[in-house]
Amino acid sequence: MNFDHYFDWAATTPIDKDIFTQATKIAVEFVGNPSSVHAEGLKANELLKKERKRCAKALGVAEKTIYFTSGGTESDYLPMISLLQGPVRGNIVVSSIEHVAISAQAAMMKNCGFTVTEIPANSKGIITPEAVVSKIQKDTQLICVMAVNNETGAIQPIYEIADAITTHCSGKRRPLFHVDAVQAIGKIHCNLAHKGINTAAISAHKIKGPRGIGILYMAQRREPFLRGGGQENGIRSGTENLAGIWAMAETLTKYASSAKKVEQQAQTQATLTEHLIQKLQQLQGCTIIPPHRGEEPQSTLYSPWILQASFANIPGQVLVRALSEKGFYISTGSACSNKKNNHPVLDAMGIKGGLATNTVRISFGPDGSKKSIDALYSCIKEIVDLFN
Amino acid sequence: MNFDHYFDWAATTPIDKDIFTQATKIAVEFVGNPSSVHAEGLKANELLKKERKRCAKALGVAEKTIYFTSGGTESDYLPMISLLQGPVRGNIVVSSIEHVAISAQAAMMKNCGFTVTEIPANSKGIITPEAVVSKIQKDTQLICVMAVNNETGAIQPIYEIADAITTHCSGKRRPLFHVDAVQAIGKIHCNLAHKGINTAAISAHKIKGPRGIGILYMAQRREPFLRGGGQENGIRSGTENLAGIWAMAETLTKYASSAKKVEQQAQTQATLTEHLIQKLQQLQGCTIIPPHRGEEPQSTLYSPWILQASFANIPGQVLVRALSEKGFYISTGSACSNKKNNHPVLDAMGIKGGLATNTVRISFGPDGSKKSIDALYSCIKEIVDLFN
Repeated sequence: MNFDHYFDWAATTPIDKDIFTQATKIAVEFVGNPSSVHAEGLKANELLKKERKRCAKALGVAEKTIYFTSGGTESDYLPMISLLQGPVRGNIVVSSIEHVAISAQAAMMKNCGFTVTEIPANSKGIITPEAVVSKIQKDTQLICVMAVNNETGAIQPIYEIADAITTHCSGKRRPLFHVDAVQAIGKIHCNLAHKGINTAAISAHKIKGPRGIGILYMAQRREPFLRGGGQENGIRSGTENLAGIWAMAETLTKYASSAKKVEQQAQTQATLTEHLIQKLQQLQGCTIIPPHRGEEPQSTLYSPWILQASFANIPGQVLVRALSEKGFYISTGSACSNKKNNHPVLDAMGIKGGLATNTVRISFGPDGSKKSIDALYSCIKEIVDLFN
Repeated sequence: MNFDHYFDWAATTPIDKDIFTQATKIAVEFVGNPSSVHAEGLKANELLKKERKRCAKALGVAEKTIYFTSGGTESDYLPMISLLQGPVRGNIVVSSIEHVAISAQAAMMKNCGFTVTEIPANSKGIITPEAVVSKIQKDTQLICVMAVNNETGAIQPIYEIADAITTHCSGKRRPLFHVDAVQAIGKIHCNLAHKGINTAAISAHKIKGPRGIGILYMAQRREPFLRGGGQENGIRSGTENLAGIWAMAETLTKYASSAKKVEQQAQTQATLTEHLIQKLQQLQGCTIIPPHRGEEPQSTLYSPWILQASFANIPGQVLVRALSEKGFYISTGSACSNKKNNHPVLDAMGIKGGLATNTVRISFGPDGSKKSIDALYSCIKEIVDLFN
């Protein structure tokens, strides 16, 4: 396929073939189970240690904070369900724009005696530190705010939120702060080592790595609820997916280890995205979502890798399918919610009705070009013209 | 490495290189997220359906009963923690010889208001249907008995247990019956479609497939506790690991789809294992574990792929390391419990003290030979002679 016409990188990314090919060699060469005490087991365990070190280095965190999981969803639910480990129930605070891996799981926690409080987003799609602390209750055990929203691209002030929680809870028991960093790592500068970020979720397949592997960052180990063989220091049981783990480390090293490179790429993409925004704004009936992003296009409030726009009279699904027929791939929103045809994130920002129904998400990968963006725009214009 | 000298197949198996190489091609070719509605997403979704069908065919079950997971541990805990979905708490019955993925998770369920009852094993390491039904309480919601024990190789009467539960609960609410089939699929004949087996866990890496992929068999869908994007019909959220899923289907098709082939291989291995048992019994201080297996060597009570033996005066870990130095790889028991140096399964059978501490597990793969088994025996004898 033509990757130049693939604009659904936030759903999943084309895999780095070199990484997968190398991972095959690792899978064949490292035969042992890292938990086995014979030479082949020890050899596998050595590799496991080495790859954990590589991930930690790429992310700028301590080795012991890296726990390998099966991906973003698992890394999101592990900290939340670990609350079931103890006998005390309490409150969970989640932002109103979280990925469904957080929001739907939080809803289930009610069946286990927890209360759930939602933090409203402002019209820009941002969760402010003030909004977060206003929701903290005496018995709040966990607060979840993602780093970059997967639909709007809105960058959340996670460092300020972490600080605000700490200040607000000074002298009291501080709730844990979990950050879904799936759309941030390797895409914008992200400092998980910032004090007050307790746990974070990372996925390989959003940055050209394989599916089925992710990382749970845990600044300080806490007792898990899910149990088993006790791998990953007890936090994530199950025989380690060594080839996947190697690929995760390689992906992070290649695409996320240099803050400078990540920032440069984001800057390059910002120019391209800005170019597309300007063109789209000339199209009759097109609204950049949230509208604020179109009004202040130079804003650094949004990830350049994700852009939402709504087209009058064209349901998002229709535009997605029409573009697909022409070989261009975009989405209506989160891939995980695509088939449900609802828009909780837009709802949370007060974007409803036709504006929401007609919203599509265009998401970019590295090595994008003005040419491919112009081609996408021409194709969108062609379809839009048919409807107007 | 020399696979002829690898006798730790129950921990993990050398991967089928062809399968992994092909999986790489799948990963590169299928770019889309199966949840995306554009052409690349639909293409990925088509493959997902096709591979689910292949798995179902290989296992002799309906397509809609196959849910892809990250492996055996996840497939073991999903049915159990799904009990948290509803408001009612109750009792969980687990056999005393379960893998720690079941036993440790059951213990955690106590923190969520469940009671846990253990089913004793007999001295042969078998959980009888009578023992199971004697433990069923009015509020029992789930019963877990594995198909083949991962340490002793004891084959559990899962069909008779399923029937006994049904008969016992006739006219009353029947608890669900979960079978950890990780050491059974592809190794001995296994019929998951047997009525009364409600859920089962399968792992790819125990039968030459990759790590990080498994199947939860669910005869009838039940509401899950873990939530997210709703993939796998809501049972297992998270972007589907398509390359892994392809590899799982290929592994099952290649190694587990023909009952005749599985039975023939098991028969061939039974002769080889019997040969090793007879040789070991000539060794001074060697006891086959459980001793019953040595007394009635023609028994079909044990999987031919797993053999335990205890050597007087030689701690299991010492023998494992001494053999490893000579290039032979065995284990002390479950890889998942290797570093803990405890033997809950042997405990459950009344095997304690030195006999337990000195127990090792020898586990076999397909294409084994008398020659390699004789070589292992010679090496064991050499070490044993040093200690006696």
